[in-house]
Amino acid sequence: MDCSVAQALEVVGEWWTLLIVREFFAPRNKHRFEEIHEDLGIARNILTVRLQNLLEHGVIERRLYQEHPPRYEYHLTRKGRDLLPVVLSLLAWGDRWADHESGPPVELRHTSCDHRFTPVLTCSHCGEKIEDQTVEASYRRSPAP
Amino acid sequence: MDCSVAQALEVVGEWWTLLIVREFFAPRNKHRFEEIHEDLGIARNILTVRLQNLLEHGVIERRLYQEHPPRYEYHLTRKGRDLLPVVLSLLAWGDRWADHESGPPVELRHTSCDHRFTPVLTCSHCGEKIEDQTVEASYRRSPAP
Repeated sequence: MDCSVAQALEVVGEWWTLLIVREFFAPRNKHRFEEIHEDLGIARNILTVRLQNLLEHGVIERRLYQEHPPRYEYHLTRKGRDLLPVVLSLLAWGDRWADHESGPPVELRHTSCDHRFTPVLTCSHCGEKIEDQTVEASYRRSPAP
Repeated sequence: MDCSVAQALEVVGEWWTLLIVREFFAPRNKHRFEEIHEDLGIARNILTVRLQNLLEHGVIERRLYQEHPPRYEYHLTRKGRDLLPVVLSLLAWGDRWADHESGPPVELRHTSCDHRFTPVLTCSHCGEKIEDQTVEASYRRSPAP
């Protein structure tokens, strides 16, 4: 499907995958198989397959942290860290629309300005917030039949 | 799982769901069962279940467009339109990281400033771009055990 959303979901659209990606970001900072397995309660065989898929797509990379026997940690690559807007947008949507008994569970702080924040999607040209009424999307060429 | 990302994915994390949500936004603007079925090439029974799930979660709503026999269109609610940052962030990531033979297939235009744009995730306090090195996330209370 000639659509970047579809192509993105080819990589991260499988159930569990974005939750695994989310483990690598703060405040979870989980990088080892056992940690992720425990934190998510995901079956070991599914976690193995999902990590392998993320490795193949260059979203994460392995780093040796113990030599005998060899043990690896998983870390996001540049391509993986670029998923931050996807994860933060999901977080913001869940914060706004999910039922939380006592408010959103996670608090975000922007270290550059040292303030709590919510993520806002803006226009790269004028800097204003993007609303659905102010976006036009058009095909640069005809979509594949 | 006490995490807004997980709660968001409970609603939109099933395979196909975000692609269906994407159909309602421009430039696709598909709102009828047959249109979405054709556009995505998704099996009718799966599309039926996914649309039902989105209706139950209040992401879309039905609108009668023909009375005899009754026929409905599906449109995003406010909650659904709020998924725009998720869809645009996936689009931007796909544009940047997927292999496109001749550039990204879709061009975005911000009607407020009338310029092409790429979506940029920014801080609600200072307006600067959010980078993964400048985000701190912390639990407002202990995560559930």
